[in-house]
Order: sequence, then structure tokens, then C-alpha cells
Amino acid sequence: MAALFKGTRSLLQRCSHKQVDLTMVCRTMASKTPVGFIGLGNMGTPMAQNLLKSGYPVIATDLFPESGKELQDLGAQILDSPADVADKADRIVTMLPSSPNVIEAYTGPHGILKKIKKGTLLIDSSTIDPSVAKEMAVASEKMGAVYMDAPVSGGVGAASLAKLTFMVGGVEQEFNAAKELLGCMGANVVYCGQVGTGQAAKICNNMLLAIGMIGTAETMNLGIRLGLDPALLTQILNMSSGRCWSSDSYNPVPGVMEGVPSANNYLGGFGTTLMAKDLGLAQSTATSTKTAIPLGSLAHQIYRLMCGRGYANKDFSSVFQFLREEEVQ
Amino acid sequence: MAALFKGTRSLLQRCSHKQVDLTMVCRTMASKTPVGFIGLGNMGTPMAQNLLKSGYPVIATDLFPESGKELQDLGAQILDSPADVADKADRIVTMLPSSPNVIEAYTGPHGILKKIKKGTLLIDSSTIDPSVAKEMAVASEKMGAVYMDAPVSGGVGAASLAKLTFMVGGVEQEFNAAKELLGCMGANVVYCGQVGTGQAAKICNNMLLAIGMIGTAETMNLGIRLGLDPALLTQILNMSSGRCWSSDSYNPVPGVMEGVPSANNYLGGFGTTLMAKDLGLAQSTATSTKTAIPLGSLAHQIYRLMCGRGYANKDFSSVFQFLREEEVQ
Amino acid sequence: MAALFKGTRSLLQRCSHKQVDLTMVCRTMASKTPVGFIGLGNMGTPMAQNLLKSGYPVIATDLFPESGKELQDLGAQILDSPADVADKADRIVTMLPSSPNVIEAYTGPHGILKKIKKGTLLIDSSTIDPSVAKEMAVASEKMGAVYMDAPVSGGVGAASLAKLTFMVGGVEQEFNAAKELLGCMGANVVYCGQVGTGQAAKICNNMLLAIGMIGTAETMNLGIRLGLDPALLTQILNMSSGRCWSSDSYNPVPGVMEGVPSANNYLGGFGTTLMAKDLGLAQSTATSTKTAIPLGSLAHQIYRLMCGRGYANKDFSSVFQFLREEEVQ
Amino acid sequence: MAALFKGTRSLLQRCSHKQVDLTMVCRTMASKTPVGFIGLGNMGTPMAQNLLKSGYPVIATDLFPESGKELQDLGAQILDSPADVADKADRIVTMLPSSPNVIEAYTGPHGILKKIKKGTLLIDSSTIDPSVAKEMAVASEKMGAVYMDAPVSGGVGAASLAKLTFMVGGVEQEFNAAKELLGCMGANVVYCGQVGTGQAAKICNNMLLAIGMIGTAETMNLGIRLGLDPALLTQILNMSSGRCWSSDSYNPVPGVMEGVPSANNYLGGFGTTLMAKDLGLAQSTATSTKTAIPLGSLAHQIYRLMCGRGYANKDFSSVFQFLREEEVQ
Repeated sequence: MAALFKGTRSLLQRCSHKQVDLTMVCRTMASKTPVGFIGLGNMGTPMAQNLLKSGYPVIATDLFPESGKELQDLGAQILDSPADVADKADRIVTMLPSSPNVIEAYTGPHGILKKIKKGTLLIDSSTIDPSVAKEMAVASEKMGAVYMDAPVSGGVGAASLAKLTFMVGGVEQEFNAAKELLGCMGANVVYCGQVGTGQAAKICNNMLLAIGMIGTAETMNLGIRLGLDPALLTQILNMSSGRCWSSDSYNPVPGVMEGVPSANNYLGGFGTTLMAKDLGLAQSTATSTKTAIPLGSLAHQIYRLMCGRGYANKDFSSVFQFLREEEVQ
Repeated sequence: MAALFKGTRSLLQRCSHKQVDLTMVCRTMASKTPVGFIGLGNMGTPMAQNLLKSGYPVIATDLFPESGKELQDLGAQILDSPADVADKADRIVTMLPSSPNVIEAYTGPHGILKKIKKGTLLIDSSTIDPSVAKEMAVASEKMGAVYMDAPVSGGVGAASLAKLTFMVGGVEQEFNAAKELLGCMGANVVYCGQVGTGQAAKICNNMLLAIGMIGTAETMNLGIRLGLDPALLTQILNMSSGRCWSSDSYNPVPGVMEGVPSANNYLGGFGTTLMAKDLGLAQSTATSTKTAIPLGSLAHQIYRLMCGRGYANKDFSSVFQFLREEEVQ
Repeated sequence: MAALFKGTRSLLQRCSHKQVDLTMVCRTMASKTPVGFIGLGNMGTPMAQNLLKSGYPVIATDLFPESGKELQDLGAQILDSPADVADKADRIVTMLPSSPNVIEAYTGPHGILKKIKKGTLLIDSSTIDPSVAKEMAVASEKMGAVYMDAPVSGGVGAASLAKLTFMVGGVEQEFNAAKELLGCMGANVVYCGQVGTGQAAKICNNMLLAIGMIGTAETMNLGIRLGLDPALLTQILNMSSGRCWSSDSYNPVPGVMEGVPSANNYLGGFGTTLMAKDLGLAQSTATSTKTAIPLGSLAHQIYRLMCGRGYANKDFSSVFQFLREEEVQ
Repeated sequence: MAALFKGTRSLLQRCSHKQVDLTMVCRTMASKTPVGFIGLGNMGTPMAQNLLKSGYPVIATDLFPESGKELQDLGAQILDSPADVADKADRIVTMLPSSPNVIEAYTGPHGILKKIKKGTLLIDSSTIDPSVAKEMAVASEKMGAVYMDAPVSGGVGAASLAKLTFMVGGVEQEFNAAKELLGCMGANVVYCGQVGTGQAAKICNNMLLAIGMIGTAETMNLGIRLGLDPALLTQILNMSSGRCWSSDSYNPVPGVMEGVPSANNYLGGFGTTLMAKDLGLAQSTATSTKTAIPLGSLAHQIYRLMCGRGYANKDFSSVFQFLREEEVQ
């Protein structure tokens, strides 16, 4: 049995991209201990479902009991509080909106740490301030538990298809244990370094994403005003040094690309408010590390402005629309 | 003969990437009329050499007579002024540093238009303000000549290897005639639209490039300060939505990538002064078209600042170094 | 008679603030030669009226003939074109919206220079690019005329009350002659240096004004969100180092100050479009002189954005409203 | 003795609110009880000296015992820790570099709250995050003490001359008690509102100050490049709408003004590092209140960049020098 686990783990290490193989391995295992899941929102619910699909019994909770209904129908056990979950599971995944929610779920009066068992593995997939992640790690360690931060890249669609990317920070020896679970919910599980570096990687990626998106929007807008066809300009950029994910995979100009939010009135996708939140985290970590981020900082201000002008719930590529409005004389 | 040309042209249209085929076709042609070339700097010289290699007699000039020496040794005829070149050639390529040089070379007292012949094809590969390109087109048209703007993407290396990308603006019917020559000097020849759109495409690309580069530099710097390994962070960005040309092909962090300026103390490459110049053009066209380019504008300011602080002649990826300097207490 | 003029001029030099004395002196003069006035918009009309009030016969024109009606009723002669005005007057004031209008009025087919007399004094009070002012000066000099740039600070109200400030660039020997006229239309006439420096001073002032206004708006907004009373915060800023004209004389927060646009739904005052135009000039001169203006540049972008979002015709202090909009969840 | 009171009174007369009542209270007091003072740096030492001069026995401490030497020679009692001070004084002023120091001095193992007496008045003159001020207020209240935040405007010179401005946040009923002490150390004591609003006012002022200073530096630099004399431009700005404290009282251009850091190679004054710190606080409060501060944010980035490029210890007006460096070809 020990040998099997060892083999499984080294397999997992090698083939994180091969979802099918992984699932097969998972299903062939004789039995699995339950996994706790806290936070059953748009992201948490499909993630927990993928754990169920991979054969893990799931014990879950959410601040709003009705959020657990869907998962319950699929066989999960829904409890009243994080503390109750911690009482029954020794591996727990948390997926919550922001730092205060995480602090409450871990250290609050009904939080995980109230009833945690020694040796429990805690994996937090929320996107929060790396310094809060470090605080949670310290608090968990005091109770004999291990905390890892594992924020995700990819939205609701990727969560449903188990195609998320997890960026994991924490003690390296525990990485494989975390990867066993995360591999059931995502296509990539990347070890980033000590606690907080998962968050750091996530924040860095999203800051560069925001800069690239606003930059693409400005560029497309300028090109159009200078008489260029947007599809042609996109083509030129994508074969040149202006190429970026926002230009070649998520173009913000309606009509240039199909299957992206710009083709659907900026519905769906990654909301401007969420981007503003992530840029706020980037700004805070930059301030505390005395790092100059002039463009990241301005990107933050632009998304903040957009939130106040009707774009809060539109996809963040709607910055194209925000910037292009023409002067009405 | 007409049929041959027609055939040759449609071939050129289809196989612009196949330098060898093209050269073969060119060489098999019975004879070629001379091509004028004005501006024999770091870019112009290898470009004119590629015209020679393709079998075109070249008649050239430069403000500094000594600049023509190298080309003369290869068989080119060097004349005293643009007017003299225009007197002898009915296809002329210009490759000059900036708008005032172009204005002088076309409309100055010894400029092309002084002795131009009707029907001459003028191709300007300089990077200049699109509105100046339009003025030159109008002035040329008055003399019965055709002007096209065809700025390049790619540096001295690409110029030598005939691997430049040309972005061409002008009357569509003349595009093939321009492409015949440009195809000898570059791997891609893209038709962008009316006069000035070649410049527009170039400016747009470089603005987004600058934004992506500064964004990448900020992001890498922040990630490093947050404890991430730069090579790992690069890997994460490149498989995620933060990916851009500056992160995956021209990474600004020393040690992450080989064969790029950051691996060579930011020598070579595309100088900060040149980037500042292109961003100045972007800024001017944005101002005149009342287009908001907040990030492009700030990128311009940052490269302008760098020019004043010792980075003028370093590659533009040195913004990583500019931003990362740590506070000395 | 010459002595009288000399005396009058030295008086004008000394007492430019004393409108009454000046007018008296003007009225007592036996006769005055006519003054040409080109551009009868919101600013030009009251300026020309003040010339009339000071006893100068006025010969005027405007692109829209009906604009001259009001002035005609007051005794001015309205002609068809700038050329016609130049034919009859040897001192001409121009007050036009932007660079292209000035170029047309001076060098166009019916422009001033077509019929100008040698020795004519041309005073341009438009706000335009200093480089255009220099071009006009050169063109005027070729015709034996003298051109000075004399843009104004102060709006329609100041124009009506002859309380404008003129910033004058041009040959110093002609300054007094210019001041004789400008002193009838303004309270301050400042000599700034060679041609173009009047424009430079104007542009510099307005750039700093824009920065101070946006800065004040941000600061007030932040203070209010942090629980401070806006009137109290204003008081604190104004007795501290945060003090600026926008905080102590033109506060952008409704309810803090009376008699300013923020007290009147941002009506009247200095429109956002006009500020965006002036910042465009600042941006262009900064680009051409390779000057880094990070805040000025961002201020330009912000006013540009506002123009596209319904603030074009509101006073520029409405940036407070633009920035403060709160997120609607 | 009468002379002493007279001195006290005329000092108090400079304070803003309710002088008479306060003076009456002072006069009727038979003697003065000791005041605790924690933090004897460049600012704290002269502040504590002014308390001594006003007749208050001072009981002080500092992390570095040698810092207390000067004050001890003037009659102050120096103790080992904040806790020891709290044990002996029921009014305590703290003046510390940043949030962590304040947290340590109040809630650390040898902090004030360890031995605090009920009813003690705590006045914190440090510049810190308003949210930390609120936390300290809550912690103090739990121990039956009253906490007020009272950060200062004015540097070492103003501290020596008792000419500081105090911005005070906290329970209004305790304001007069605080003012009794603060009035001995400053010329203005302003009540701002609930706990944290003193910090808010300070942060707001300094953000606008930074924006005004950078704006002035950019403007002066642009004007000079456009051919304007800096002294003349300063004069024009100061009589126009560009006027601000940085242009009229602390001009950053060497040679324009005497007695300011720009006249002394940017020595003395308010260091760039300190400004960067305050802008970091502004940025953090703006992020947490979701307030858009585009210029404040960019000002932060610029001062952060300067810290890394040799300007850390120069006066913050040295941004003029930072921006003006010319390109060396």
C-alpha cells in the first residue's frame, strides 16, 4: 500500500497535464479519505464537484447554507462551520473571496483552527495578500497543521473542466500531498516556493495581464482612429513584438475574435471588480516591498475608475470600451 | 513580358517568406532597372545590399558621403543628393532617422521632388509621423509620383538577413510593385491600407511592445521581491494570461533567457532612445486624434526619464534595471 | 505728438493695473488709428469691445459673419476676411480657437499676410503650439511685419472686465507697442521673452493648474472617504503645504466654496475640452523638447478620458465628480 | 513665576480654538503633572524640550538609550521602556517613525498598555496608517485609556520653534486636554474628527504636496526648455492659477528662491524616503477605501523610483533634478 502511494505520487509529479491518466489512477485506488471544502461559490462548487468525481468523499460548508445544495445532491456532506469540517477531515481546501473571509474561516470563532487535528493539510486557493497567507501558515503551524497557498489561474469554465492552474506555496515536502488533490481540479500544479509565493505568482500574473489588456485596448483604439482595420492590426501585432495574451487569445475589440467576452457584450469572463481587487493586492505588496510598479499602479487606478463608472461587473476587457468613448460636442 | 511580371508578382505575393525562391526568380529575370536608395545608416546599408544581392542596380546617396563607401565597393553608384538619385531611378527607397530628415530628403532644395520623373514609385521605410507621410504623399502626387510608407519591424540583424517585416500604406494598386522590392529586403510585407497606415501599424506595435516590456520588468521585479525565482516566474507567466513577447521571447531579467540583450548587459537590441522616439510619435498621433492612451503615455515618460539617466543607448529591456535599483540607506 | 505717445507708453508701462487711469489717458488722446481684430468668439468679442471703449476704432472679421453683429452695433467696422482687415489696419489682434485657425488666418488664401502692410504689428492672443507661433513670426517677418504671441489667462468674465493677464513673447522693442493695446483688455501684461515664450508660459501654467486640480480632487475625495469633513480638510490644506489655487480659490467639491463652478453643477468656468486641448499642447512641446512630464501627461489622459464620458463641456473642476463615482454592486 | 505664565499664555494665544478657557485652566493649575514622551528622534527631542520649557516635568524613553541624553541634561527623567513611562505618567506623547514602531510601543511586551493607568491620555504624533490608529484606540480603550492621533505638519525647524501644526483625531471631549500639551509644541492644533482623521488629514495634505511638487518640477523644467527664465516663470505661475505651495514657498529650482533646500543642494528639508513612506500610506488607504488616486499613485511611484536612484536622503524637491537630467548622446 505504501508502495502504491509512493508510485502514485511520483506519477502525479510527472503527469500533471494528463488529466485522464490521473483520474484513472485515482479511481483505481481502493479507498479515499474525505476532503473538506470551505467556500462553495462560483469557483468552489465546480472544484468540489471535481473532487467528488475523482472519488473523494467531500465534507463541505459555506457561509450561506443554500450554496451547498447542489453539492449535497451529488453526495457531499454539508456541515455548519469550518470548525465542524476541520473536526472530520484532515485535508481541507478553502476557496474564498478575499483576505478577511480567509482570516475568519481559519481563525474566527467557528474557524478551522478551533477544531483542527494535528497533521491536517490546509490548502487555500483564495487569492489574498501573501502576508495574510504567511499569517495563516504561522497560525496553522502553531496547531500542528500545515498550510499551503494555492491560488488558481482560470475562471469558472476552467474550474468546471478541471483545467485550472494552481500556483502553490508552502513546505516543499508537502507539495505532493497537495498535488494529489489539486491535480483532480486542475491541469497544472506548479510549485512556487515558500508560503506566500503561490499568491505572489498569481498577483504577478494578473498585474501583467491587466497591463497587457489595457495596453492592447489603447493600441487597438489608437490604430482604429489612425485608419487601421482592427482585425488586420491584431494580425500584425500577433506576428510582431506587440503580441500578448490579450491580443492573441482574448482580444478586447468586438468583432475580432469569437468566443471571448468582447464578442458577447463583455458578459462572462473575469469581472472588472475582481481585477481591481487583484491589482489592489499587487499595489499593497509593491508598497510593502518598496517596489516601483508605475504601469501596474496606473492599471489599478484605471480599473478602479471603471468600477465607479458602470463597468464593475463587465469583463475586464471592456476597458477597450471605457477608453474609446468619443467626445460628444 | 507583361505576363512574366504578372506571374512574378503573384508568386511574390504568395511566397514572401521564401527568400531563396524569390532571389532565384529575381536573378532569372532578363534585366532589372536601377533602384534608388536614400539613407545609408545601420539599417539602410544592409537593406540596399540585399537589393544588390537580388540583382538590382542600386543608385544611392546619404547626407554623409562616407556612409556610401561600403555599398560602393559592392557595386552601387553613389550620387550627391536625393535629387540626383531621383533623376536616374524611377523606384526609390528612403530609410531615414526621423520626420525632419524625410521632409528634407523629399521636399528640400536638393530633395527627390526637385528632379522626380512622372510615375516614380517612392517607398519610405523610415518611422515617422503618419501625418508627415500623408503630406509627402500629397507632395509626391502633385509631381505625378506615387508615395508609399513602409516602415519596418526588426533591427539591424533582420535587415542583414532580409528578414524584416514591412508594414505598407498607400494606393493598393501599387502594392505589388512595392512588394517586389520590399520582398528582397524582408520576410513579411503586409498591406495595411491607405497612406500612413504603415506608420500607424508600426507605431501601434511599438507602443504595445513598450507597455509589455515595462509591465514585464515591473512584474518580474515584484515577483523577485516577493520571493519567486525569476526563471520559474517567467515559466508561470508564459503558460498563463500574463504571457507576452517581452516575457517569452525577450525577457528583460538577466539569467532567464539566452541570446537576448538582458544576457549581454543590455547591449545591442533596440535602444531606449529609439523607443522613446517611437513613443513620442504614438503620443503625438494620440493627441491629434484625441485618443486616450494612459499606459502608452506613461511608458513614453518612463523611457524619456531613462534617456536622461544613462540608459539612452542600452536596449529598451534595461527598464528592468532602471526600476529595480534598491534604496541605499 | 511723438512725445505724448512716448509719455503715454511709459505711463502704460508703469500702471498696467490701473484700468481707470489708463482709459482716461486713452480717451484724452486726440485721435487713435484703427485696430484690426480677427476672431469674434466668446473671448474675442468682449476683448474687441474693450478696445472700442478705450477709444480705438476697430476693424474686425470672423469666419462666421453673424459673430460680428454685436460689435458692429457698438461701432466696429466688419470686413470679409483677415486680408481685408490687414489692408486697413496696421495693428491687428487675433483671437482664435487653435493652431490650424491661426495658420489659416495668417497664411491662408484670404489671410492677413496676403495684404499686410510693412511695419504692421500682429498680436496673436490665441493659445497655440509655440512652434506654430514661431512659424507665424517668421512668415510675418518676411513681409516686413512684426508678430508677437500674447495668449491670455482668465476666462470670459475677465475678458469682459478687461482683467485678463497677457503673457507676451516677441521682440522686446515692440513690447510697449503691444502693451498699449493689451493694457486696454487686461490687468496684467507680462513680457516673457522671444517669440513663443508667451505660449510657453501659458501652457506651463495650465499644465500645473490641471495637475493641481486633479490632485485636489483626488485628495478631497480620499479625505472624505477617510471620514474628514470637506470644508475642514480644505481649511487644513490651505494653511499647510498642500495649498494650491485649486484648493484655495476654485475648490472642486460642491458646498466648500461659493461663486465657483463646483457650486453651480460645474457650469461655466473653463471647459474640460479646453483643458484637454491645452494639455495636448503641453504634451506636444514636451515631446519635441524631450522633457519628461509624467504627471502632466497623465493629467492630459485623464481630461481626455473625461471628454469621452460626458464631461466635455463641464468646468474642468468636475474631475472631482469623475473620480468620486462609487462602485455600484 | 508670573513671567513664566505670561510666556505660556502668549504661546497659547497662537493656538486656534478656545484660547481663553484653556489659558484660564492653565493659570489656575497650581503645578503641572509629568508628561510621558516616547520616541526621542529628530522630531521627538525638540518637541519634548518644548514641553520642558512650558514647565512640564517630562518622563521619556527611546529604543536607543543614548537618544535620551540631551533631554536628560535638560532635566527630563529617562526610563527603560514605554511600560515604565506609562507606570509614572498619565499623559503620554508618542513620536515614532512608522506603524510597526507604534504597535510595538503600545502593545509590545514592554509597551505602554502593559502598565497603563485608567484614564491615561495617549497622544500619538507619529504618521501612520489611520487603520493602525484605530486599532491602537480600541486597544487603549479596553484598558480604560484614551487614544488620540495627532500627526504633525512641519519639520525639525518647526519642532524646535514650537511652530508645528497638529491634526488631531479622537473623542472631541478630550480635545482640550490634548491641546493643552500640543499647544506647547505647535502653533496650530486642529481638531479633525474621530480617531484616525488626524492621520487622514496628514496623509491627504502630503499627497497633494507631493503632486504639487512634482507638478511644479515638471512645469519649471518644461518652461526652461521652452526658453523661459525660471524666476520669471515662477512669478507668472504665482500670480496665476498654477500657483501652489511648491511654486511660491518651496520652489524646487535652484536660484529661484533663498532659504529652501533647492538653494542648498537639496540638503535638509523633507527627505524623499519620508515622502515615499507617506505616499505609501495614501496608497494603502486609497486601496482599502476603493478610491481612485491616479496622480497620487503616480507620485508615489516617482518618489519610490527616486529612492532607488540616489535621492533617498535628499529633500523631496530634488524631483526637479531627477526629472531634468538631459540625454547624453
